[in-house]
Amino acid sequence: MNGGDGETSYARNSFLQRKVICLTKSIREEAIRKVYCSKTPRSLVIADLGCSSGPNTFLVVSEVIMAVEKLCRELKHDDESPEYQVLMNDLPGNDFNSIFMSLDLFLEQLSREVEGGIGPCYVSGVPGSFYGRIFPTNTLHFVHSSYSLMWLSQVPEGVENNKGNIYMSSTSPLNVFEAYYEQFQRDFSSFLKCRAQEVVEGGCMVLTFLGRRSDDPSSKECCYIWQLLAMALNEMVAEGIIKEEEMDRFNIPQYTPSPWEVKSEVMKEGSFNIDRLEVSEVHWNPFNDDESYSGDGGYHVAKLMRPVAEPLLASHFGEAIIEEAFCRYERILTSIMSKETRTMFINVSVSMTRTAPS
Amino acid sequence: MNGGDGETSYARNSFLQRKVICLTKSIREEAIRKVYCSKTPRSLVIADLGCSSGPNTFLVVSEVIMAVEKLCRELKHDDESPEYQVLMNDLPGNDFNSIFMSLDLFLEQLSREVEGGIGPCYVSGVPGSFYGRIFPTNTLHFVHSSYSLMWLSQVPEGVENNKGNIYMSSTSPLNVFEAYYEQFQRDFSSFLKCRAQEVVEGGCMVLTFLGRRSDDPSSKECCYIWQLLAMALNEMVAEGIIKEEEMDRFNIPQYTPSPWEVKSEVMKEGSFNIDRLEVSEVHWNPFNDDESYSGDGGYHVAKLMRPVAEPLLASHFGEAIIEEAFCRYERILTSIMSKETRTMFINVSVSMTRTAPS
Repeated sequence: MNGGDGETSYARNSFLQRKVICLTKSIREEAIRKVYCSKTPRSLVIADLGCSSGPNTFLVVSEVIMAVEKLCRELKHDDESPEYQVLMNDLPGNDFNSIFMSLDLFLEQLSREVEGGIGPCYVSGVPGSFYGRIFPTNTLHFVHSSYSLMWLSQVPEGVENNKGNIYMSSTSPLNVFEAYYEQFQRDFSSFLKCRAQEVVEGGCMVLTFLGRRSDDPSSKECCYIWQLLAMALNEMVAEGIIKEEEMDRFNIPQYTPSPWEVKSEVMKEGSFNIDRLEVSEVHWNPFNDDESYSGDGGYHVAKLMRPVAEPLLASHFGEAIIEEAFCRYERILTSIMSKETRTMFINVSVSMTRTAPS
Repeated sequence: MNGGDGETSYARNSFLQRKVICLTKSIREEAIRKVYCSKTPRSLVIADLGCSSGPNTFLVVSEVIMAVEKLCRELKHDDESPEYQVLMNDLPGNDFNSIFMSLDLFLEQLSREVEGGIGPCYVSGVPGSFYGRIFPTNTLHFVHSSYSLMWLSQVPEGVENNKGNIYMSSTSPLNVFEAYYEQFQRDFSSFLKCRAQEVVEGGCMVLTFLGRRSDDPSSKECCYIWQLLAMALNEMVAEGIIKEEEMDRFNIPQYTPSPWEVKSEVMKEGSFNIDRLEVSEVHWNPFNDDESYSGDGGYHVAKLMRPVAEPLLASHFGEAIIEEAFCRYERILTSIMSKETRTMFINVSVSMTRTAPS
């Protein structure tokens, strides 16, 4: 997540996020083919925003490079793979050391996987918040971000009356929805303004948000997962383990936009044309599709949510409540998921091209 | 150092190295002024090779940016500072996380120090050995490296008969000098070939080696510091603490070139014109110039050499001998330095410009 005390990185390491990246592969492939065909750059500059560090870090980069190499073969540019400049971005607290230590192995494996090898690949780490400028002007050909942009730069101001909730919910007052949406608009429009400066004309950007289908921001499809965590915390308030005032002051710095909300900011900013805007979904429990699976969904979902929620909870409530909170959260998840099987995360993906500066 | 088991980073954090960077400041200032005046790039790309992590990491970058800003004022480009692209390179084992965590503070301080502030500055970390390609083709305007290039990519092969020594010395057989010099030629010519691809025409490169004045590679000015460490180790061999075979197989992967040797490789490679080639010197004990100083030089020099030599010694002889070895080394240094006051490190600095590709 971005901003706040628990600032580390846009964690992107779960099996769920691996599934999301696979689900959205065709959107990226179409976009990178379009960029390469229209620009055929000698040096192709790829930026992955919120790259995290861990098993999924190089997933998108390797997929994109493989798509370009395939295209080179098709176009008979056999001897002319481009040079790749790969810019791995995340917050300064991300573990770039571990990315760099695994780099040689990654490049070796990638070279082996592609028949005839790949063009020279120069990887660098770029620390900083993508809500500000992080790259030089007019340099990027392809920008990717997955499951990072729903993190706001801060908790919206003026949501003190969101009592008993930790995110937007059906019981939230109207001003809470307004404050969250305005923060999303401010942040995403900053993002677009910065990238508009950095992406070359004809360059593409593919972004995937954790989002929602519905126009209603209190829709269960995006709020329920946090409501269940709020239930766990409210139990602890009732038992005096957490102070009520502390609970009242806690809100999650996230906004799960609808496709229309994403589209509307892109159009307002005006530097990008939308090529595709799509919604996909993935079960809360990433192992759910596996037919041989018969385990406890609550366990897996609590495990998945913990690295996301723990830094936020710990920096607000302290470390002491963490075990208890996740124990209760798991119990609640297990109970709910035994009754409701359509517990899905909604992904909003958008692909866009930088238009000519006017 | 580069290559070998103890591979971490080109350590550049001592007070001594701070002094060396200060000593060579005017060479860099002249070079960066030349680049800026001839190219006036909208986006100025600066690479610092062997940047290490610690108090000296941003020293050169901030000095170079300040020189450009001063020049912009002189040329009345008041409103037109360039964008800076700063590429911090070191081996993958370097602590890039700590560089990135201190980045905001560095940029804030730098902006405050320059009246009217500086142009936008985009910093990235680039892991990898500078004896191979690490940057995209034709992109760099200014390259700097200080006290890194005397580290060879490996211990030269065929120096098994360098008995009782750990570096070239007056008692080394002829083949040892040949092997060391050939390794230096191979490594430095690889370095030059790679940089020739990466530096734009008219771009500059300023390199400082720990080196020597004399044409004689066994000259005391470059070998003595290691001879004294060899004395400490030989004592331990004599007392049975270190095995003689282990001592015979240990050699330092370093080469301290003369100005002529540096110049000769640059001319052979042929892509750069030498603008300046200079020798400077700095006392083994960096506190020696301080008139109020009356401490034990041996203590300071042993302390200075330890982070450099320890990883090499530990990976060859094991951790167990380290304390004892440095204790003896300090005693020997103290004794020598009480008799000889002209114990100096020699620095060879070269400034060169990329010529038009033929």
